Amino acid sequence: MTQTALVVLGTALHTPSRDGLEVLQDCAFVVDSAGRIAEVIPPGARQDEVVAEAEAAGILHRMAPETWLIPGLVDLHIHAPQWPQLGLALDEPLEVWLQKYTFPLEVRYQDSAFATEVYDDLVRSLLAQGTTTALYFGTVHKAPNLILAEACLRHGQRALVGKVAMDDPATCPEFYRDADAATALAETRDFITELRAMQGENPLVLPVITPRFIPSCTDELLAGLGKLAAETGCHVQTHASESDWAKGYVEQRLGCSDCEALDGFGLMTERTVLAHCNFVSDPDMGLMAERGVAVAHCPMSNAYFANAIFPMRRALERGVEAGLGTDISGGFSPSLLDGMRHALMSSRHLGAGTDPGLSPDQRGSNETPLSAVEVFWLATAGGGEALSLPIGQLREGFYFDALVIRANLPRSGLRVRPEITRHQEILEKIVLTADAAAIGEVWVQGRKVLEQ
Amino acid sequence: MTQTALVVLGTALHTPSRDGLEVLQDCAFVVDSAGRIAEVIPPGARQDEVVAEAEAAGILHRMAPETWLIPGLVDLHIHAPQWPQLGLALDEPLEVWLQKYTFPLEVRYQDSAFATEVYDDLVRSLLAQGTTTALYFGTVHKAPNLILAEACLRHGQRALVGKVAMDDPATCPEFYRDADAATALAETRDFITELRAMQGENPLVLPVITPRFIPSCTDELLAGLGKLAAETGCHVQTHASESDWAKGYVEQRLGCSDCEALDGFGLMTERTVLAHCNFVSDPDMGLMAERGVAVAHCPMSNAYFANAIFPMRRALERGVEAGLGTDISGGFSPSLLDGMRHALMSSRHLGAGTDPGLSPDQRGSNETPLSAVEVFWLATAGGGEALSLPIGQLREGFYFDALVIRANLPRSGLRVRPEITRHQEILEKIVLTADAAAIGEVWVQGRKVLEQ
Ligand SMILES: [Zn+2]
Ligand SMILES: [Zn+2]
Repeated sequence: MTQTALVVLGTALHTPSRDGLEVLQDCAFVVDSAGRIAEVIPPGARQDEVVAEAEAAGILHRMAPETWLIPGLVDLHIHAPQWPQLGLALDEPLEVWLQKYTFPLEVRYQDSAFATEVYDDLVRSLLAQGTTTALYFGTVHKAPNLILAEACLRHGQRALVGKVAMDDPATCPEFYRDADAATALAETRDFITELRAMQGENPLVLPVITPRFIPSCTDELLAGLGKLAAETGCHVQTHASESDWAKGYVEQRLGCSDCEALDGFGLMTERTVLAHCNFVSDPDMGLMAERGVAVAHCPMSNAYFANAIFPMRRALERGVEAGLGTDISGGFSPSLLDGMRHALMSSRHLGAGTDPGLSPDQRGSNETPLSAVEVFWLATAGGGEALSLPIGQLREGFYFDALVIRANLPRSGLRVRPEITRHQEILEKIVLTADAAAIGEVWVQGRKVLEQ
Repeated sequence: MTQTALVVLGTALHTPSRDGLEVLQDCAFVVDSAGRIAEVIPPGARQDEVVAEAEAAGILHRMAPETWLIPGLVDLHIHAPQWPQLGLALDEPLEVWLQKYTFPLEVRYQDSAFATEVYDDLVRSLLAQGTTTALYFGTVHKAPNLILAEACLRHGQRALVGKVAMDDPATCPEFYRDADAATALAETRDFITELRAMQGENPLVLPVITPRFIPSCTDELLAGLGKLAAETGCHVQTHASESDWAKGYVEQRLGCSDCEALDGFGLMTERTVLAHCNFVSDPDMGLMAERGVAVAHCPMSNAYFANAIFPMRRALERGVEAGLGTDISGGFSPSLLDGMRHALMSSRHLGAGTDPGLSPDQRGSNETPLSAVEVFWLATAGGGEALSLPIGQLREGFYFDALVIRANLPRSGLRVRPEITRHQEILEKIVLTADAAAIGEVWVQGRKVLEQ
């Protein structure tokens, strides 16, 4: 039996399904010692009793008026080592961007002082932006990835950290790659073991098997990582079908699509997240849905590196699991709140089209655009489902990973006048206008990790 | 002769032309009592002398390390009364959005307590987002527009305020329109006179002649406003060719394009700013360039209400003056820093296309996307040129309207590590990642109006 560790009293907005806002008005959220929500108690005699007990025990947290609890944001795609180059060199083509800027930066993390300093700033910054769960690509070298995990543990961010595997001498520079497939596999295995050993029950930081993308990995490495995934039960992440080039490369080398190839290597699992997927086919989507593989949609970097927008509506209708990623630093904003807005805009541009020189019926794909509620779901519950973790919702059995949103602060765009009382409208306001300045508190696994 | 009122010592980044970043490193900006930059002095003996004098006189402002001066942002399109509904109801079509939400809100400003409260919050919020010059649509009624002007004067924001003119009973609701053309003209004239009378020399707030858009105005009103523009020398603003519907409506009613019609009414002047313009033709762009008419590009609201993206590259190549607008509340963010990012993203989507189902050469318009420097120029110097005002640059003769940008603050996305020293990269970082939290000071006309 777990004990009650915390009772939070306030109003929460969350989306258990992608078209369903649920309002938990003036509820008591009873959080157990494992950081999970044990019970959500609506107003009434029983709530009064539980609140009184919590108050007496000094574990009651009463939310202020004009504040709302929402689930913490789940960022499904972040390159942790690229944090220093956020917003830089995005005008370059992907190949130049990787070889000239990104790989030379990623190799620097062997300097553990540099790694410690940057990762500390990254984790604190992301928590301040409301990201309570981060799915991280690390670097090729093992040690800095453990430093990243330590930063997450120190600051209390839920995270999944991957040692990047890339061994193909034909595509990876000599100064930055695994020596060979066997070395990459051994390092990945050691990383998983060491990261798991750093924590006890109820771990906050999980290891992820992380081939960079097919073009940077040999078949031997990909097959080995697939076996390791089956053996360890770890999550898997990689990039798939991001650009015309990447899609064409895989077809040429392996005679099939990214998804088919990854499936053959045993890398399409219930715990797999594929970044981008812009150019996946309908059968690929079918395969993703069948395997429970999720897409990390990164609308900002789509504009820079994909030259196309991921067709989210089509994926959702096919039953593909999905969430959002900032793609730091292929995307320029660390905020998944910005990410929601970019997902909305992109979806409208895809559906309605962009070129005023074309007639309206010729202009776009005519897909129904995403709604505010849907992008909120993607950034919270959708992300949780993608990771197969009990996060992204504020109901019983889920971890208490949550943000306290405040309105009407001087430097924030979130203005909520007293006449706005419908929670649907408040949620729309949060999705369209909330920012870091509107985040008052950040909670992860029942612990307040930031108050600002 | 004016006196030196202020000397600011620091490094400024600005863009006198749209492809030219100019770095004014460790310069002394000598500001006169009218709030204009009298001299920009590079390091050297003369600077030492001026700085010493200013220090002795107590008018020296020495900028901190890791801060940069940039021109204040010029927002070319804001509906001031729509501030309370920022982020709401954007999924509705324009007609529903106007009739059901917007007009009922705008009419409320006859309540002067409501107007005072909302406009006070709006002006303070926009200054906090770095908007030092705002081109505002007000409401139909005169009095609340004067309240808005007072708020600008009280908080020190440079602004242009327009009494909205809309008199066509066929398109405007009875509860919210000018009684007839004569009334609209008389009210506009009175508004101009009263606003001018509120200020002396060197006014901070200017009146703008503001027909809502052709569909809401009779020919008589449009012709009368054109005459008033010639007579008073006032600025002019309206919406033009925003959507397929709006373009078609004008063609049907007047047998020509928005631009041609406005030109016939005398409303295409050197001081005219047209919002949106998504569907202007090549000849329309030629006419705009000839007349010195500027476009206010509003990328956020384009996605919601235009179903197309304004072809900025084409307009710039044709010599059309241009800047950016948030289009509060057709756009959802009050930040023109966000506006720059959305302009970048939109431009890439237009050029490269969006639909992964099409081949790359079929996908987009192939226009060259905007660069980070270009969107910065649009939000600063471009906006100043659009308004024919000496703002948006930090050189001699221009008003000292400026922001102090700070890096590495906890809640900001702007991280600049010590190894990033090239000013081109610092500017890219500011354009892609700066936010309200990165704005340390806001200066308008030589006066510090906000420090945060
Ligand atoms: Zn990536
Ligand atoms: Zn407008």
